[in-house]
Amino acid sequence: TEDFNPIDHPHRRLNPLSGEWILVSPHRAKRPWLGQQESIAQDKRPAHDPDCFLCAGNTRITGDINPDYQGCYVFTNDFAALMPDTPNAEISTDPLMRCQSARGTSRVVCFSPDHGKTLPELSLAALEQIITTWQQQMRELGEHYPWVQIFENKGAVMGCSNPHPHGQIWANSFLPNEAEQEDQRQKAYFDQYHSPMLVDYVQRELADGQRTVVETKHWLAVVPYWASWPFETLLLPKTPIRQLTELNIEQRADLALALKKLTSRYDNLFQCAFPYSMGWHGAPFNQRENAHWQLHAHFYPPLLRSATVRKFMVGYEMLAEAQRDLTAEQAAERLRAVSDIHYSQSES
Amino acid sequence: TEDFNPIDHPHRRLNPLSGEWILVSPHRAKRPWLGQQESIAQDKRPAHDPDCFLCAGNTRITGDINPDYQGCYVFTNDFAALMPDTPNAEISTDPLMRCQSARGTSRVVCFSPDHGKTLPELSLAALEQIITTWQQQMRELGEHYPWVQIFENKGAVMGCSNPHPHGQIWANSFLPNEAEQEDQRQKAYFDQYHSPMLVDYVQRELADGQRTVVETKHWLAVVPYWASWPFETLLLPKTPIRQLTELNIEQRADLALALKKLTSRYDNLFQCAFPYSMGWHGAPFNQRENAHWQLHAHFYPPLLRSATVRKFMVGYEMLAEAQRDLTAEQAAERLRAVSDIHYSQSES
Ligand SMILES: O=P(O)(O)O[C@H]1O[C@H](CO)[C@@H](O)[C@H](O)[C@H]1O
Ligand SMILES: O=P(O)(O)O[C@H]1O[C@H](CO)[C@@H](O)[C@H](O)[C@H]1O
Repeated sequence: TEDFNPIDHPHRRLNPLSGEWILVSPHRAKRPWLGQQESIAQDKRPAHDPDCFLCAGNTRITGDINPDYQGCYVFTNDFAALMPDTPNAEISTDPLMRCQSARGTSRVVCFSPDHGKTLPELSLAALEQIITTWQQQMRELGEHYPWVQIFENKGAVMGCSNPHPHGQIWANSFLPNEAEQEDQRQKAYFDQYHSPMLVDYVQRELADGQRTVVETKHWLAVVPYWASWPFETLLLPKTPIRQLTELNIEQRADLALALKKLTSRYDNLFQCAFPYSMGWHGAPFNQRENAHWQLHAHFYPPLLRSATVRKFMVGYEMLAEAQRDLTAEQAAERLRAVSDIHYSQSES
Repeated sequence: TEDFNPIDHPHRRLNPLSGEWILVSPHRAKRPWLGQQESIAQDKRPAHDPDCFLCAGNTRITGDINPDYQGCYVFTNDFAALMPDTPNAEISTDPLMRCQSARGTSRVVCFSPDHGKTLPELSLAALEQIITTWQQQMRELGEHYPWVQIFENKGAVMGCSNPHPHGQIWANSFLPNEAEQEDQRQKAYFDQYHSPMLVDYVQRELADGQRTVVETKHWLAVVPYWASWPFETLLLPKTPIRQLTELNIEQRADLALALKKLTSRYDNLFQCAFPYSMGWHGAPFNQRENAHWQLHAHFYPPLLRSATVRKFMVGYEMLAEAQRDLTAEQAAERLRAVSDIHYSQSES
């Protein structure tokens, strides 16, 4: 009888950060696609759009006027999901209907005054300024909240309602599910192996190379062994760093480079503004002992076959388990096969 | 100072089946929507489409010809994610890159030869036949596999590539994540309270009524207290039943009625073929002790504001925690406010 091999045979891989399994069906990439097609974002947008709520000098829905900003501009979300002054609820121990009050705030970060540019099209200096802004926000909000979630939703298919380059920051009075899970799993690993899980993982990936997408002096982006989205990546510092705020100047400049290369490879894959949700996870601000934490960013892009055909995480995925049609190694190979210089910026 | 109340104040609710929290931001439903619009499915389809791979008498991609079926028709998926004969992988204990082989099968269930009808438009007799088919499949596949996932993806927005009324059945040689979690959580509850979690929950909801959407003699559909999708529902038998296969004739006929009423309310909410993923969870087939299990169906519909504006579970949701903009009680109230007779079938 045949031996098992993960290139041809369906198998499951364990995500050590979440404790969840992912079903990998490598033979399934061949099936025909007859379903929904996404529309592609128009490639050329003006540098300023008079109808955009995020462009410099424009008026927002609330009537507030954006300043004539250069670089990044941060303001409190006009329709925040959380507010700083929610009263405390009584402690509930009801095992079936349990509730707790939640406080927080939610901010918008305009990455650039240029309405028409996305991350890979910005200069390294502009990218560095975004990272500096993230660090400042982390520092400021981390004084009041245990968890500060920095993220970017990019593309209409990811629910992004405005193409102006921007991200969000939601601060929470609680550890949200994903944070709690990663905290527990990294802690358990650290207790057992006396080394941070993701620091060990970086070493394994550096030694292997099959899943590497971008490597710079201080940073590594891989399609993680346990990826669930087709071209999901994990971006990590190569050395132990627990929070964005800890980066030194050199690590920060090098992160700008890694971000530019990674997002350029994404756009080059299907020659489109590659949609995704991305965000940072680092040590919570209410922990004294956080040696088990390693800073990292997750990129969750939905596209599967082309600029218009996405992966749907529905049905079996919602009711049973995430499932993917190509291996992490195959996805990394495809991302390595395209240039790390953005198609709009390469000379021909 | 103001007292906390869950109608005005952001809060979190715990899903006792998954152990995950959901962030509820009731004040946020007011924000304007500028993002992607879904296209609405054309309401009228012919009873037979010569290009449909699922219609009776037509040829599938593989060249196989569908029989001239009446009622339900079940066949093995031409592009199954799992196969029955995958060789076993060596047991892996690697904490960072852990893999196991996976076996199974995947079948398609055509709900009706009529290409133009969806569940709420089928007769009660036709719905009963679907339930009987599910029971037969469960019985047959349950002899070989510990988990059999019955589900339906409905609507292009849910990745459904064919509008012909159909569902899928994936049998697994393993307990997928969601099954494993529900098993553990129900077991822990049973050990502590000596009663099945969801049997107790049904009693609480019957006594309360705020979240009820449909009630029949034997069945209850509620927007669960911990719903994460805007109009998510949980459909449960009122008495202890562990598996679909256990239903008696009366409970089965009554389930047809509950399904018809629930899916009619869904369609009536925005006067469209309401998209969703739905599926059944019941006791695994490899357990001797399964008194902690209660059979139930989850309905996960993506629509939020209208037939064309959906909820996106992206960004914060992917990186931190599910978030909703209206309370479970408000969603249930809206579903109760519309008729349980489908708009296409009501006389005016
Ligand atoms: O098998 P289908 O209907 O072609 O595919 C659909 O349902 C599957 C099971 O939920 C998902 O894995 C796919 O992403 C989705 O497109
Ligand atoms: O705040 P936005 O960009 O309008 O909204 C988007 O991102 C939020 C945070 O990820 C999600 O909760 C919304 O569903 C999504 O549409």
